[in-house]
Amino acid sequence: MTQPKDRDTDAMHRHLRDVERLLARLRLVDTLVHRQRMPHQELVENITHRQNLGRLRRKLDRLHPADIAWILEALPVDDRLFVWDLVKAEKDGDILLEVSDAVRATLLGTMDADEIKAAAETLDADELADLAPDLPPEIMQDVLASLDQEEQEQVRAAMSYPEGTVGALMDFDMVTVREDVSLEVVLRYLRRFEALPDHTDKIFVVDREERLRGVLTLESLLINDPETEVFKVMQSKSIVSFSPDDSADSAANAFERYDLVSVPVVDSENCVIGRLTVAEMVDHIREESEAEILSNAGLREEEDIFAPVIRSVKNRWAWLAINLVTAFIASRVIDLFEGSIEKLVALAALMPIVAGIGGNAGNQTITMIVRAIAMGQVQPSALWRLLRKELGVAVINGVVWGGVVGVAAWLLYGNYALGLVMTAAMTLNLLLAATAGVVIPLIRQRLGRDPALGSSVLITALTDSGGFFIFLGLATLFLL
Amino acid sequence: MTQPKDRDTDAMHRHLRDVERLLARLRLVDTLVHRQRMPHQELVENITHRQNLGRLRRKLDRLHPADIAWILEALPVDDRLFVWDLVKAEKDGDILLEVSDAVRATLLGTMDADEIKAAAETLDADELADLAPDLPPEIMQDVLASLDQEEQEQVRAAMSYPEGTVGALMDFDMVTVREDVSLEVVLRYLRRFEALPDHTDKIFVVDREERLRGVLTLESLLINDPETEVFKVMQSKSIVSFSPDDSADSAANAFERYDLVSVPVVDSENCVIGRLTVAEMVDHIREESEAEILSNAGLREEEDIFAPVIRSVKNRWAWLAINLVTAFIASRVIDLFEGSIEKLVALAALMPIVAGIGGNAGNQTITMIVRAIAMGQVQPSALWRLLRKELGVAVINGVVWGGVVGVAAWLLYGNYALGLVMTAAMTLNLLLAATAGVVIPLIRQRLGRDPALGSSVLITALTDSGGFFIFLGLATLFLL
Repeated sequence: MTQPKDRDTDAMHRHLRDVERLLARLRLVDTLVHRQRMPHQELVENITHRQNLGRLRRKLDRLHPADIAWILEALPVDDRLFVWDLVKAEKDGDILLEVSDAVRATLLGTMDADEIKAAAETLDADELADLAPDLPPEIMQDVLASLDQEEQEQVRAAMSYPEGTVGALMDFDMVTVREDVSLEVVLRYLRRFEALPDHTDKIFVVDREERLRGVLTLESLLINDPETEVFKVMQSKSIVSFSPDDSADSAANAFERYDLVSVPVVDSENCVIGRLTVAEMVDHIREESEAEILSNAGLREEEDIFAPVIRSVKNRWAWLAINLVTAFIASRVIDLFEGSIEKLVALAALMPIVAGIGGNAGNQTITMIVRAIAMGQVQPSALWRLLRKELGVAVINGVVWGGVVGVAAWLLYGNYALGLVMTAAMTLNLLLAATAGVVIPLIRQRLGRDPALGSSVLITALTDSGGFFIFLGLATLFLL
Repeated sequence: MTQPKDRDTDAMHRHLRDVERLLARLRLVDTLVHRQRMPHQELVENITHRQNLGRLRRKLDRLHPADIAWILEALPVDDRLFVWDLVKAEKDGDILLEVSDAVRATLLGTMDADEIKAAAETLDADELADLAPDLPPEIMQDVLASLDQEEQEQVRAAMSYPEGTVGALMDFDMVTVREDVSLEVVLRYLRRFEALPDHTDKIFVVDREERLRGVLTLESLLINDPETEVFKVMQSKSIVSFSPDDSADSAANAFERYDLVSVPVVDSENCVIGRLTVAEMVDHIREESEAEILSNAGLREEEDIFAPVIRSVKNRWAWLAINLVTAFIASRVIDLFEGSIEKLVALAALMPIVAGIGGNAGNQTITMIVRAIAMGQVQPSALWRLLRKELGVAVINGVVWGGVVGVAAWLLYGNYALGLVMTAAMTLNLLLAATAGVVIPLIRQRLGRDPALGSSVLITALTDSGGFFIFLGLATLFLL
């Protein structure tokens, strides 16, 4: 069998390589000009140069905005801006929506007010609202002024919902019909459209006051007799709908659980005010899991990998500072036992094992509990049951791994008491890790905080300082 | 403003509480029987008991299989099996598909061969293939035998593709038409269906040999004149399609990038053999990111949080064993410098700071690089550029944080040389972390391995042992 053809990724890499090759050719000429081996005028008139430039431009014209966004992210900053200049202005808006925040900043930085305005004007109200926070306020004012009344209100509405809510992710493209017409009327009505909104899998059925009465799936529209009236085939019971204040996470769970494509968003009067699509949900799910993985490693946000050093330092410093504080606390704990270490220097070599294994086990527990809380499957009332289980795991691990380590310490240092202390300290630190791993996220949940945030730092800090204290404390009591 | 109403999650919790309340009532009677305060016969005849049982059963009948799956996962094992017994048999198959692997095992464990067979027979070919690995082989044989020829082949085909490929995720429900008919004919054809496959947003246009000629979106079908022929309004250029050997990750990227709902899967002859939908992709994206977060914490697989202790121990032991080995190596490195620590015991207290900060910075670098590789945006050729940047970040962090730590050490121990050694060791260990953070994932990528797997263990092991060696080594050279 041949190697699986990874068509999509392969295609993207082929595009990227094409662009890079053309850029390299262009750069060669540039370098010659720079070294003054070729006068600037000659460059502009140089046929090969113009041909390559034309090729690159045509290549970019053929690509989907999302693909161009991907290529821009993969290019170093100078190449990126060069390519950005060549992209057709009408694609600018879509591309700006697709790139990561960090890359968007570099792109917007090179555009003048008119270019930004032109790009913004190609976007729908909900897209404009997404982009708004990154645009200079005076430009945003101009863009808003150029919209009609309804669109202005839509942009303002979309911007008024905080990040992480359905309102911030919904769009305003929807098709609505009345329930008392026949499917034939609906079919004729649809034929008057030039295009349907993306991801239209159902039409919203509303009354005169725009209140949601039901949904008519395109499936029902297509498989039923055109003479049938809408209300006979529409779905009107247990329709999934969201309020703009609902959390995006909860909406994503519903999309995943019920395999949805589009869902109406209704206000407190049950009037349809927007629509949420699976495309937004896919992006949301990706972004959330990205953010979680990044924040687990102490990165504040996605980095433009070609960003200048100073930007990366800013993205990462907070985590390092916090860890420095916790490391210092652990260091002070060790310092308490200076005398003991002086007398039995083996303690210094063994103590990181106790702390390290405790940290790993604690991270396992806390990750598992945080996952279960995020799925909504753990209530604070489950505390005792979970704690009992985790303590059980800790005892087994303590006896098994603590035993292994204890025997190793005994053999290495010829001191069986040291081995016993090691085993006891490992077991106690694992019990500490298990308790903290269950209690910390559940307490945070009860306080209404995000149970995931910084959980790894907290538990590692605890098992480090705790591990050193337990091990050195036991050693001081029993060995010296 | 009121607190955001988290409708979906709230609704699920309400369902869960209802079920728990009914279970509690049932359990109360059970306990009375158990304590022999009530004869068993009386229990069965007890009206309240029967009422409660009926209520619970009706509650479950009204719930979506995905919701029942969620509730089963949130219940402790004994309650879970009790509820599972009450669920209507026709929902069994769908629920088994929805629950996590760990919970599925507990549910299958209580079913006899006939029940499993009945559940399996309610499923489509692709769903059956998903469930197959968890079913006893002899039952699977029976189920296969009960299918018609075409379905048997579909199940075998779906099972023949390895996990993580498009083939393993595709379904076989699709609607195909010829290109030379009019839209009116297509509309009439669709009216003969009882239902369209889920997520039908386009119809596949094929020739006599089932070769893909184009796709007809429901949108084009609906907005165009019924007299138009299919080939005039179908999309035939740059249609996204997949081969069953394509990787699911790559397909998920395409769904995300181009906002797709369904995509045809074609064989090497361009014949349509299946279909991939956004619902499968949403599940895939979720599972992948879950798996990544779990494996970052050293959990082999998702855990049933109510699983017995021994199962959790098995899920977690491998990671702890690996970490024990790396911790032992670090411990041996410290042991090399026993003499130095004896002379200057402050070294023991300070060394975990050097190791810890190095580990954190290394994890930041490696997470960022692994992300960029997963997005396909980093090629091995970018090595030097990335390395230069990360080394730059390391130098700045080393000077700033190393400086802070150095001054602190000087003030604490009144030894300015110790402070200098501390600063130097921190900077060197950060440089080591940056180098390893860039080089390890890029080398793995070049060797065709997964750059993410175990990257965190590797870099932490390196910065621990390396940090101890650098710090204690410098101290031995310059302070003693």
